[in-house]
Amino acid sequence: MTEQTDITPTPFPTPELGEPYLLTPGPLTTSAEVKRAMLKDWGSWDSDFRSMTAQMCRHLLEIANDKNGEFECVPMQGSGTFSVEAMLGSFLPKDSKTLVLINGAYGKRVAETISYLNRDYIVLDKGDYMPPRGDEIEAILREDPAISHVIAVHCETSSGILNPIQEISDVVYAEGRKLLVDSMSAFGALPLDVNKTRYEAMVSSANKCIEGVPGFGFVIARKSELENAEGSSHSLSLDIHQQWRNFQKTGQWRFTPPTHVVAAFMEALKTHKLEGGAPGRLARYTQNRDIMVAGMRELGFETLLKDRWLSPIIVTFFNPSHPNFEFTKFYDLMKARGFIIYPGKLTVVDSFRVGCIGRMDENVMRQVVLAAKETLAEMKVDSALPPEAALIERAKLAA
Amino acid sequence: MTEQTDITPTPFPTPELGEPYLLTPGPLTTSAEVKRAMLKDWGSWDSDFRSMTAQMCRHLLEIANDKNGEFECVPMQGSGTFSVEAMLGSFLPKDSKTLVLINGAYGKRVAETISYLNRDYIVLDKGDYMPPRGDEIEAILREDPAISHVIAVHCETSSGILNPIQEISDVVYAEGRKLLVDSMSAFGALPLDVNKTRYEAMVSSANKCIEGVPGFGFVIARKSELENAEGSSHSLSLDIHQQWRNFQKTGQWRFTPPTHVVAAFMEALKTHKLEGGAPGRLARYTQNRDIMVAGMRELGFETLLKDRWLSPIIVTFFNPSHPNFEFTKFYDLMKARGFIIYPGKLTVVDSFRVGCIGRMDENVMRQVVLAAKETLAEMKVDSALPPEAALIERAKLAA
Ligand SMILES: Cc1ncc(COP(=O)(O)O)c(C=O)c1O
Ligand SMILES: Cc1ncc(COP(=O)(O)O)c(C=O)c1O
Repeated sequence: MTEQTDITPTPFPTPELGEPYLLTPGPLTTSAEVKRAMLKDWGSWDSDFRSMTAQMCRHLLEIANDKNGEFECVPMQGSGTFSVEAMLGSFLPKDSKTLVLINGAYGKRVAETISYLNRDYIVLDKGDYMPPRGDEIEAILREDPAISHVIAVHCETSSGILNPIQEISDVVYAEGRKLLVDSMSAFGALPLDVNKTRYEAMVSSANKCIEGVPGFGFVIARKSELENAEGSSHSLSLDIHQQWRNFQKTGQWRFTPPTHVVAAFMEALKTHKLEGGAPGRLARYTQNRDIMVAGMRELGFETLLKDRWLSPIIVTFFNPSHPNFEFTKFYDLMKARGFIIYPGKLTVVDSFRVGCIGRMDENVMRQVVLAAKETLAEMKVDSALPPEAALIERAKLAA
Repeated sequence: MTEQTDITPTPFPTPELGEPYLLTPGPLTTSAEVKRAMLKDWGSWDSDFRSMTAQMCRHLLEIANDKNGEFECVPMQGSGTFSVEAMLGSFLPKDSKTLVLINGAYGKRVAETISYLNRDYIVLDKGDYMPPRGDEIEAILREDPAISHVIAVHCETSSGILNPIQEISDVVYAEGRKLLVDSMSAFGALPLDVNKTRYEAMVSSANKCIEGVPGFGFVIARKSELENAEGSSHSLSLDIHQQWRNFQKTGQWRFTPPTHVVAAFMEALKTHKLEGGAPGRLARYTQNRDIMVAGMRELGFETLLKDRWLSPIIVTFFNPSHPNFEFTKFYDLMKARGFIIYPGKLTVVDSFRVGCIGRMDENVMRQVVLAAKETLAEMKVDSALPPEAALIERAKLAA
């Protein structure tokens, strides 16, 4: 994976003619095999489909390294947000009080979801991208003994920051509280081993680091939490306890599953295993990021984050301050070159994002950099430097 | 469609080798073109995907015959149940009181969902399959002026009964109340024209009469209801008002859409139009049902319902009382012959169901009957007659 040069044929076929690479954190570019797995119809009641679901859950628990069988995997229809809401509604008791760690859009969404649930919470909001640190969390938990739960976002995809999940977990349990994790964009690549990083439940979805297509998410939860969750959910559809009970009783999804998406995910899981599981995938994504970030920096682009906080999932770059730079134009010209990038989500300075996940390797990332170079030239942007204010912002972040 | 004989080549290719037909009410057998539409990855933020979504909604509003632009279509991730829950949470105000018309599992599920919402309701429960009639509804509404809403299931898929939706709508509005409709298994084939059958909102999903693959549902709702629904939903993910506002503002799904499933649905909509829209589809399904029911009756099977109430969607048959008949065996032997049927959902007598929807025509239905005949012979069941009790049950139903 690391010794490849530009001329080595890549095992990653380019998408169909005219189809751009998705440099986005899901939906992402999937393999042809994953998509071809959708060419068959499945009866959801049938035993073939039931055993596929069971196999999927076992595989996901293996990735979480649940050696002692303390956890269960419960798939849930809908997008990732549906699974996050299902986790919150099911595992935050009605009389709970939650500390939500926020440093971006997905942390904010967790808080908004708990507002819908009418359950008590407070937030530690670090702004657009500063990481929540152990000592601050400890201080809040010590000051407010009513707090029973903490929610953290593993990789906050809106900036791309990799939050210090081990540090967070350690302090939460040292203070005798419970942790729930939104590991949507991290699980399957970044380590989240139940034996090392303690948590009660975490959630991810089909179309992130496992590289399936979108249509469902899944919750990996401690059995004791699943048992206790009876009657907790605010929603019939999003009731994780009932969903789990039904899988146990019948092997079936409670309501019609996205059968084709599940079949695609099984294929994605196979490839995930062949690539060496989460460590193998992390190695490729890291390589993708390193090649891409180095190339973009060479063009003069600056990352929002210092290296220490850069995830191998998605990277935020400041928009150049050059008067000729305009994001929608940059987007369209990159798309014309075969690459779909993502707008930024920062509130203070303008930015865009480039994803490192999906069926892409370092060769693709070199082409991305080349496309960015050509695009800047076409836009007559001779410097990709961000405005001064952006660099002042960044200086606040620990190296 | 009606003049075909057994030897006319069918425009409905058989599924891939070894793949059974799904005689189920979704997931169902879809065309090869629908599945092949999933061979491409789409960026959900990209304008191509946004315009696909807009086109889809326009097409669905056309099927509903919204000539005056009074309605909007709001797609929702998840299975059909998620869309039903979204409709209930969004359009039943917190101080509403609802009359739920029940004659099977899906009506019961509506009531259960409203229980989760903690909103007031009463039920008219007609048991396994008796239809709710206009005069009974009128009496209930007159007696209880607090009732603001009525919910009806269009085709109650658990028995296959086609509920008298026009009669229900007429009485609901004559009494000055509002109607919401679960038209999951009916929309796209059975008429539900907003100019003839008044309602505030209805819901269906991708994998029913439009013949797409499962992964999302959609709500067709009166604009005024959508506007009034702000702040009503109990759930962030299932908030139809917010989902609609976001489509209006950005053209995007609020959270990651099942892109491949949407692309497949677009293909399914094309075929739907080519086949003559809902009337064309209704003609084929009706033919499917008539051929299948006639054949099964010739074998001695009895339908749960009298002809008047039989939907062209799915038909319930009583299990034969013969001692050699066992459903799981019948199921397995039918599957071995290439047909997946569905277990029944009645509480009083044992039954099974055969669906008429999906990419199948009358030739396929003749093969189904033949397979049933062979299967009975193999099981050494020489009479398919149901137990006496079943026929006594049925006698209660108006012809
Ligand atoms: C960390 C995180 N949480 C939640 C979500 C929401 O997932 P979805 O868009 O599938 O609803 C995302 C999506 O990118 C995410 O990255
Ligand atoms: C009338 C009706 N309502 C609701 C549903 C639930 O839909 P889903 O299984 O997609 O959640 C169905 C499914 O067959 C149905 O037929």
